Amino acid sequence: MKKEMVVNPWEVSGNVDYGKLIRKFGLSKISEQLLERLKKDTGELHFMLRRKIFFAHRDLGFALDEYEKGKNLFLYTGCGPSGPIHLGHALVWAFTKWLQDKLGVELWFQFTDDEKFLFKDKTYAEIQKWTENNMLDVIAIGFNPKKTNFLIDTKNAGLMYKEAIKVAKKITFSMVKSSFGMNEQSNIGSIFYTSMQAVPAFLPSVIKKKNMACLIPHAVDQDPHFRLTRDIIPKLGYHKPASIQCSFLPPLTGVAGKMSSSKGQSIFLTDSPKEVEMKIKKYAFSGGRDTLEEHRKKGGNPDVDVSFQYLKFFFEPDDNKLKKIYNDYKSGKMLTSELKEILIKKINSFLKEHQRKRVLAKKQIHKFLLKE
Amino acid sequence: MKKEMVVNPWEVSGNVDYGKLIRKFGLSKISEQLLERLKKDTGELHFMLRRKIFFAHRDLGFALDEYEKGKNLFLYTGCGPSGPIHLGHALVWAFTKWLQDKLGVELWFQFTDDEKFLFKDKTYAEIQKWTENNMLDVIAIGFNPKKTNFLIDTKNAGLMYKEAIKVAKKITFSMVKSSFGMNEQSNIGSIFYTSMQAVPAFLPSVIKKKNMACLIPHAVDQDPHFRLTRDIIPKLGYHKPASIQCSFLPPLTGVAGKMSSSKGQSIFLTDSPKEVEMKIKKYAFSGGRDTLEEHRKKGGNPDVDVSFQYLKFFFEPDDNKLKKIYNDYKSGKMLTSELKEILIKKINSFLKEHQRKRVLAKKQIHKFLLKE
Repeated sequence: MKKEMVVNPWEVSGNVDYGKLIRKFGLSKISEQLLERLKKDTGELHFMLRRKIFFAHRDLGFALDEYEKGKNLFLYTGCGPSGPIHLGHALVWAFTKWLQDKLGVELWFQFTDDEKFLFKDKTYAEIQKWTENNMLDVIAIGFNPKKTNFLIDTKNAGLMYKEAIKVAKKITFSMVKSSFGMNEQSNIGSIFYTSMQAVPAFLPSVIKKKNMACLIPHAVDQDPHFRLTRDIIPKLGYHKPASIQCSFLPPLTGVAGKMSSSKGQSIFLTDSPKEVEMKIKKYAFSGGRDTLEEHRKKGGNPDVDVSFQYLKFFFEPDDNKLKKIYNDYKSGKMLTSELKEILIKKINSFLKEHQRKRVLAKKQIHKFLLKE
Repeated sequence: MKKEMVVNPWEVSGNVDYGKLIRKFGLSKISEQLLERLKKDTGELHFMLRRKIFFAHRDLGFALDEYEKGKNLFLYTGCGPSGPIHLGHALVWAFTKWLQDKLGVELWFQFTDDEKFLFKDKTYAEIQKWTENNMLDVIAIGFNPKKTNFLIDTKNAGLMYKEAIKVAKKITFSMVKSSFGMNEQSNIGSIFYTSMQAVPAFLPSVIKKKNMACLIPHAVDQDPHFRLTRDIIPKLGYHKPASIQCSFLPPLTGVAGKMSSSKGQSIFLTDSPKEVEMKIKKYAFSGGRDTLEEHRKKGGNPDVDVSFQYLKFFFEPDDNKLKKIYNDYKSGKMLTSELKEILIKKINSFLKEHQRKRVLAKKQIHKFLLKE
């Protein structure tokens, strides 16, 4: 049974048809021409671009124009702190770090602690605990502390609220109703919230007193926020923010939906090697056949195999190696257990290094907090 | 023709029936017993209490309990900065200053610049200009700088927003729809706003880490804000704010409605003596008769005479003098021109002193701004 596709900032479920999403949301595919420009500007093409994990955009050409004219560009991404960080988050951030390194531009990283408090059945104290926790993971990703500013909505409200109300004045209840499905029972903080998410897209322009281009790397489910933002910000005199959008790292249980902290099985950046091994072995949906014999004879299906997808999305940057795994699995030469073993090693090697940096991150936090 | 009474935070019009308002809003009259307690706590009864200008309350008894137990009480009032300050504002603040002086407690004074920006067709810069301007008038009223903290919503959002979202999470769109008449076309900042107005009622308790009673002196049209606030704040673990509410200083044009910066004729705290004289002579609705002869014979009606009402509400604290004016005007012994002359002198004497202090206020602002 094919489940109906649902994609919005608060729910992703069903088999996601990205072609349909591009048409529905009014996105643009990243063209070969744009890939060429990105390659010229960054020196190389990240495998997530080559493989079209980042597949869609809005105004990426404009962002590159401004960058090429004189680095008049900053990056903006973020995190909703309500649970442990999983691989889906890390994917977007790893790509963002790459962009930051290659382009040498500032990143503004938003922690939407207000959003998570307002939308989830969690206390303010719980959300603050997760904010502290998640900051460590963000820092461990390796962003340049000299070019990265953390914006924590409740902590930086002194700067943000006065800009947010300028956005809010131009958005009606009827607009958030149609964009996000708000209703009469929605709390008034959640109704207001999208104004806060809009702010980092122009706050650097306010602070630096010059109109800068903003490029937002994000997973495609966040598009409704920024679609509304793009309509409003030009009315305040700032450029529409551009975006570069990726598809969803699937949950362990199958290629439908997306990895999520709050449901399904996820791999967290704080998982131990044993936990990773257990999760992959126990939960990672396999494209293999029911019996060893059948698998050897007919081969597996890497396109629905979650372990293969994780290699493709994140853990095997080498296209040739990936292709070999694809072919070996499809032909039946490689068994599911062997494929899973490759992935377990890759993830654990990534997490070992991440967790080492995460311990060091506590002493780095102050370097990332915005000096108001 | 009797116009229908409308009383809410954004509109006051028609002949206000205060008895009906008490029943409709569910307020309590200030009883003789409470007046006795107030007299005991303050040493004397302010003429606005004796004359029932401040006529209604919520939980005033509780506020006095907490005060009497150990001064566990603070005052909260405020100002929406969108135009010049008029006598109606000054009345509430003069009473609040008296309470502060007599009780020796802190006052938290809120400037709702976000509200005015979100609800009025004015730019952010205009509202900021009015905030600066209005602060001078507030300071000139004579509040004790050692016991008064200004809260400017956009400037102090760093402290306020994180408390406001705790309020907002407990208020639905449907609740602000029924309390304030919000609709689908309302902007999402205006929908959120009441959460910010709730914050000063418990922020001192947050900062001082002890649950304090809050007493809000205000004109009765603000009651819907605090009615909602009173339902929510106990859910956050703080006391319901108490209030002491006054009737409306009438506009110059007649005893219906209230004095307002945005409509009708008002006397501003920055008016010159000539302007005051002209406004009173030209606009102040008179309870006098059409001809001098008729007035001498039948007498005037002080109850609808705006000049007399201003003396009663604000400018003649001496009950005996007021009574004499009342009787003389009613008997026809005093003419409208004489009554107006008395009022003009009183107002100009008040404004002379106010404007002198207002010039000095610029150098005092820093003493009132909250040190975060």
